[in-house]
Amino acid sequence: MTGFTHFNEHGRAKMVDITAKKESARKAVARSSVQMSGDVYDNIVNQKNKKGDVLSVAQVAGIMASKQTSSLIPMCHPIPISGVNLSFEWKTPEDNLYELVILAEVKTVGSTGVEMEALTAASVAALTIYDMCKAIDKSMIIGQTFLLEKSGGKSGDYKR
Amino acid sequence: MTGFTHFNEHGRAKMVDITAKKESARKAVARSSVQMSGDVYDNIVNQKNKKGDVLSVAQVAGIMASKQTSSLIPMCHPIPISGVNLSFEWKTPEDNLYELVILAEVKTVGSTGVEMEALTAASVAALTIYDMCKAIDKSMIIGQTFLLEKSGGKSGDYKR
Amino acid sequence: MTGFTHFNEHGRAKMVDITAKKESARKAVARSSVQMSGDVYDNIVNQKNKKGDVLSVAQVAGIMASKQTSSLIPMCHPIPISGVNLSFEWKTPEDNLYELVILAEVKTVGSTGVEMEALTAASVAALTIYDMCKAIDKSMIIGQTFLLEKSGGKSGDYKR
Amino acid sequence: MTGFTHFNEHGRAKMVDITAKKESARKAVARSSVQMSGDVYDNIVNQKNKKGDVLSVAQVAGIMASKQTSSLIPMCHPIPISGVNLSFEWKTPEDNLYELVILAEVKTVGSTGVEMEALTAASVAALTIYDMCKAIDKSMIIGQTFLLEKSGGKSGDYKR
Amino acid sequence: MTGFTHFNEHGRAKMVDITAKKESARKAVARSSVQMSGDVYDNIVNQKNKKGDVLSVAQVAGIMASKQTSSLIPMCHPIPISGVNLSFEWKTPEDNLYELVILAEVKTVGSTGVEMEALTAASVAALTIYDMCKAIDKSMIIGQTFLLEKSGGKSGDYKR
Amino acid sequence: MTGFTHFNEHGRAKMVDITAKKESARKAVARSSVQMSGDVYDNIVNQKNKKGDVLSVAQVAGIMASKQTSSLIPMCHPIPISGVNLSFEWKTPEDNLYELVILAEVKTVGSTGVEMEALTAASVAALTIYDMCKAIDKSMIIGQTFLLEKSGGKSGDYKR
Repeated sequence: MTGFTHFNEHGRAKMVDITAKKESARKAVARSSVQMSGDVYDNIVNQKNKKGDVLSVAQVAGIMASKQTSSLIPMCHPIPISGVNLSFEWKTPEDNLYELVILAEVKTVGSTGVEMEALTAASVAALTIYDMCKAIDKSMIIGQTFLLEKSGGKSGDYKR
Repeated sequence: MTGFTHFNEHGRAKMVDITAKKESARKAVARSSVQMSGDVYDNIVNQKNKKGDVLSVAQVAGIMASKQTSSLIPMCHPIPISGVNLSFEWKTPEDNLYELVILAEVKTVGSTGVEMEALTAASVAALTIYDMCKAIDKSMIIGQTFLLEKSGGKSGDYKR
Repeated sequence: MTGFTHFNEHGRAKMVDITAKKESARKAVARSSVQMSGDVYDNIVNQKNKKGDVLSVAQVAGIMASKQTSSLIPMCHPIPISGVNLSFEWKTPEDNLYELVILAEVKTVGSTGVEMEALTAASVAALTIYDMCKAIDKSMIIGQTFLLEKSGGKSGDYKR
Repeated sequence: MTGFTHFNEHGRAKMVDITAKKESARKAVARSSVQMSGDVYDNIVNQKNKKGDVLSVAQVAGIMASKQTSSLIPMCHPIPISGVNLSFEWKTPEDNLYELVILAEVKTVGSTGVEMEALTAASVAALTIYDMCKAIDKSMIIGQTFLLEKSGGKSGDYKR
Repeated sequence: MTGFTHFNEHGRAKMVDITAKKESARKAVARSSVQMSGDVYDNIVNQKNKKGDVLSVAQVAGIMASKQTSSLIPMCHPIPISGVNLSFEWKTPEDNLYELVILAEVKTVGSTGVEMEALTAASVAALTIYDMCKAIDKSMIIGQTFLLEKSGGKSGDYKR
Repeated sequence: MTGFTHFNEHGRAKMVDITAKKESARKAVARSSVQMSGDVYDNIVNQKNKKGDVLSVAQVAGIMASKQTSSLIPMCHPIPISGVNLSFEWKTPEDNLYELVILAEVKTVGSTGVEMEALTAASVAALTIYDMCKAIDKSMIIGQTFLLEKSGGKSGDYKR
């Protein structure tokens, strides 16, 4: 078990010193989802056919949010993101409950990982979908959000 | 069933026109959580006793994020937030799995609701906790995130 | 001829005092455009059919930029935008030169106008189109950008 | 003719992966302008003599905007800008129409070019001039905005 | 003696609830300064004569910073600033030590005061002067920074 | 005596070109303080014991502000900060006047120094303390703010 790295000798938070860490290529993939009724599902899918595309707005929002990660998460280092991609996939509905899975992949060449950037991109994409559909149904749920995998860096690869 | 309000006549996204809506006092409460192992739990609780306080950093992050909501969520209106509060509560652990519940309450006097501000505050607080503990355990999960209640505004009150 | 309002008694810039101005409903419409070759035109139109939609990214960028206007333009007042819409229209091509017209409409209930918000939305939408197509052709030109009309406020309506 | 690089396999926008690209010194120069009446021209020039200087505000605005480029343009990579300079030049007036030319030069040592940073700096400088003079004349026009030249990077140099 | 208003019942920070407070016209004036050697003074004054004007950059920086106050100060409410002005004044030098006094005045019509906006404007103007002159002398000192006066609001007027 | 580096050949401000400078490890430490009455002191210290911790909010604010330095200070280069730490220390009170000293240390591996990042972190931490205590006493003073030391880079080390 490792202890906290985010606290200084007074027990207060600090931004961990990574001055001595080498730059390397890194990648992280995070997952979130939005659970919704058949009504919301129909609207998203129909609207998409008419080119008004909830998912394309969420895609842009997720990508732009990944670039704001270090402004949002207090102890995050600013990182020069070198690539971001989001993809969406509908799960098979159960009992008229639809779930849209969101995958966010972020890459960098940097001294620390991009887990938070991927998680932030996935979260903000989910929030954007909620925002654009909440006039239809406020009871949508943003599903569990977690790290699927990361690679690169000294702490090694991780796969859920 | 109401249709989408976020699309213009070409099927593209727009920021809904609320020019004619009256200002009124509004409130929204959102909920998120972080699920973690006993190791992470111990670290958060011990650290708290030594005054290094993961939760106080998350609290500040959530409050600050609520003020960035309209910069993050593309179709959100800028809203003059009049109050924000976050609270944390540990659920009784099951099978050495600990869950920290995050409640975010946001208020405004404005022409549209603060659901997205409350959801954003709760989400960013959860992401901050993940960030500060990920050196110990990358497998933490941000639990379901949803609107608990809202009041004020023409669409009426909502309670989950 | 009116003199400058943006300078203080030392001749230095200030943000004009609008404390005494009444709030009223206001609207502004701005216009920009992007001039491009037939190659770029084909790519935008084809891509759109395949759902990858340059214009929907530009739409989101323009709307989000309107909310950043007072952070970008030094003497602009922060304004609670109450609605934003962008639309795109292809002009009839001449000599294989295509021009995409961008119209941005912004509304507020506030103490000062939203001309800058509309101009910023149109400009950033144009810049976004340039960015997404510059791998094909760097010689695209962002056409003239100007105010088409405004209404509301003490200075009266304006129509180009 | 090259195809789009900004779309993923679902046809949705992504931030292009530049992880494998080498860092190199790069430069870009963009041009915009503001066309105005003799009245506005007189005010800018007179005010300048009294030290209240529209152009110096626009200069600062353009430089600061170049640093916000990746927050404004959705698919832009964050780039560590290593230098920015703006210059202004009055063209010989024709029929009492004055045109102020704006040149913005941006440099970086990075994995991708700074064309968007230069275009954004020139655009926001032009918007700032419009903002500061619009009390005198709302019919000013921001002239064509385009890339003058770029150097560095794999795609080679470009000169208009 | 009043107790803290910025803490919730768990002792953690919150953004104070001002939902019930009435909007009124408010003003605050803050003061900061920069103390410098005769070398730096000469450069600022000479440069000013040649139109390169450290103070005009600081003026713009201070005004723009006042608009970022609620993004910087965690518990600050977002406030619709209705006017900002900065002025500079050289004190009579003593022993070749020069001091430039910075006054920042901010106005709003809002539910809470603009003390923090005025203090932030003055502080960032001072930091900008330091930044632009530090190549000449790193030992400059930003002098005491404090509230000179405020008016409007329930807590009454304050004058130092 | 060195002349200004922040002005171009027209005497207007520019962001200095550091394209040719080599990256190296750099550090800067800045100092600010807040002077307050015994009442405010008692509240901060008592509140801390009850876990509501003014200083931990200020700590987070200072760290987050250091990441916004290049957005606030017009001619500052964006710098990839590699570590930030703040510490607080109470000086021995004199005549019931209490002074809290704030030290901010910032590190980077970059082409230019982090003096402004350290000064900004210290200043915003001080402003945050003022904000959270101003309900008790508006006459608090932010003490002198200056650079304590810097190391790394061509211009050599500096120690006050």
